[in-house]
Amino acid sequence: MNFEQQLQTKIDLKTKPLQALGLLEKIAYKIGKVQQTLTPNLVAPTIIVFAADHGLAKEGVSAYPTEVTYQMVLNFLNHGAAINVFCKQHNINLKVVDAGVSKDFAPHPDLIQAKAGHGTHNMISGPAITKDELAFCFSSGEQIVRDIAATGTNIIGFGEMGIGNTSSASLLMSSLLDLPIDKCVGRGTGLDDEGLKRKKEILTNIINTHPKPANAKDALEQYGGYEIAQMCAAMLEAYRHNMIILVDGFIASSAFLCAANLEPKITDNAIFCHKSDEIGHHLLIRSFNEQAILDMNLRLGEGTGCALAYPLIQSAVAFLNEMASFESANVSNK
Amino acid sequence: MNFEQQLQTKIDLKTKPLQALGLLEKIAYKIGKVQQTLTPNLVAPTIIVFAADHGLAKEGVSAYPTEVTYQMVLNFLNHGAAINVFCKQHNINLKVVDAGVSKDFAPHPDLIQAKAGHGTHNMISGPAITKDELAFCFSSGEQIVRDIAATGTNIIGFGEMGIGNTSSASLLMSSLLDLPIDKCVGRGTGLDDEGLKRKKEILTNIINTHPKPANAKDALEQYGGYEIAQMCAAMLEAYRHNMIILVDGFIASSAFLCAANLEPKITDNAIFCHKSDEIGHHLLIRSFNEQAILDMNLRLGEGTGCALAYPLIQSAVAFLNEMASFESANVSNK
Repeated sequence: MNFEQQLQTKIDLKTKPLQALGLLEKIAYKIGKVQQTLTPNLVAPTIIVFAADHGLAKEGVSAYPTEVTYQMVLNFLNHGAAINVFCKQHNINLKVVDAGVSKDFAPHPDLIQAKAGHGTHNMISGPAITKDELAFCFSSGEQIVRDIAATGTNIIGFGEMGIGNTSSASLLMSSLLDLPIDKCVGRGTGLDDEGLKRKKEILTNIINTHPKPANAKDALEQYGGYEIAQMCAAMLEAYRHNMIILVDGFIASSAFLCAANLEPKITDNAIFCHKSDEIGHHLLIRSFNEQAILDMNLRLGEGTGCALAYPLIQSAVAFLNEMASFESANVSNK
Repeated sequence: MNFEQQLQTKIDLKTKPLQALGLLEKIAYKIGKVQQTLTPNLVAPTIIVFAADHGLAKEGVSAYPTEVTYQMVLNFLNHGAAINVFCKQHNINLKVVDAGVSKDFAPHPDLIQAKAGHGTHNMISGPAITKDELAFCFSSGEQIVRDIAATGTNIIGFGEMGIGNTSSASLLMSSLLDLPIDKCVGRGTGLDDEGLKRKKEILTNIINTHPKPANAKDALEQYGGYEIAQMCAAMLEAYRHNMIILVDGFIASSAFLCAANLEPKITDNAIFCHKSDEIGHHLLIRSFNEQAILDMNLRLGEGTGCALAYPLIQSAVAFLNEMASFESANVSNK
């Protein structure tokens, strides 16, 4: 038997009907395969939240004002947000990155400063990100993950905060998957029907007037945002360190789509943590032939889906390591 | 504002878009309402696994031989099964009950002896359970939960082990929801097409030849099993102690259906932990207008869905207790 067969056999001979642990079995297999061991482990789990503002937000594509990005970063630093609560619950390290928030922060031990600008350029009249800014986002995203890898982390999740960033995610998805923009645009943080109609008009106009991107880097320049570009680079760096990569919701998935466009093998290491209520996310997940762990109508971002799904990933590893086999427990197989 | 409005307002004013935590918000609301507090807590979580055999199993309705019930109980007692691994992971107390396994067990500190018989009667030729046996199942199921309540437990999950018990669950569901038996019968632990056809024929014959049950107790007598009857009684007793009731998969849901038939208000306290891959389970959940927490193609039973979903229930309580509000964090609302 080759290694993959040994791994599948170990899963199949646990004291349970074949495949009765469903998706947990696929996760156990994936992690065993990435780590090339029948006894995988999860070390120093970490979630990075990338925050940035979006020039397009002034056009009214979000239900919330731009200041909320800055305010929510302060909330992260004060441990008041949902992602703080769930990371604390599961002993997950949390890092917050200023990837390009409009306002500046005072230095803070939990904040990584990697500001590409004070919000992206308003893409209604041109690219959201310059070539230089994109290069900065890539080098800083890579460096952040290199520093985390040095602490021994072998599983990493990615979240974001950025008022207006579902617009960037929808444009990236439409462009890279060649899907009509209508199938990729949703209510974000809670637009009403009128607001959704306006958002669709604005994004349709942008996609029609911008040059068609040739690849993910082009698409990131055209549509932004800084946090998505840094996350894309960070995911690629996590792949180079052979980490398990936890993908959060719609925006993190759009960053992952960019990463997979640049390095298709990254999907071997990725686990989709939840299927968001944001329209388009299910199509995005399906484009990778993957099934998300949670389907609980979450649409918060911040990496909350990664944190909430984390104990289930631990369960996958635990059953593989700790459950008895039919033979060891003297249980009759079929 | 009345209490329910205060509770909903506390949820709505957390620093997140309205309803952005999806099902977690509904769970937080449910637990707050059951406990009548804005700061709920979960105390001494416990899962009970009821095990019993089924006379009908000799007709070949399961992919596994009857001995597996006995062998798996020993596996539970030796901490080798999936439910052991997941309970250990989340510090959940685990109790195993011999509700009517064919073989007898030596005394064991982790095993509760409450044997109603050595497997139910083969219902191919009459009721699965006698009136006296059913009365015993009810009194023992109640007593087990009374003993657990005395330890302070305010959240309790229910699982089962019993080769052949999806047949009882399908018959209970068909009978109490007045649904065609075909919509209620699935592959159980893994029947092939031939086996499934045979199971459907046998169950159709049983439903056609037995008297139509007038209520859940009648239905339990006709269709069994001991573990389902004890679980039904245990759930009702948990409701009387105002515990949060965690419902596992298809068979536990059929026990809950019986309990709700006898005390409809029990649904106020119930959380459906997962949607099983077993055909019929989604209809059973939908009959209560409820949404299950997990949808991961699990079909193992043992209470594993309860244990796996437990950290998400903790997350619901944690966000309600620990997250900042828009006001406390100085974040702008819509």
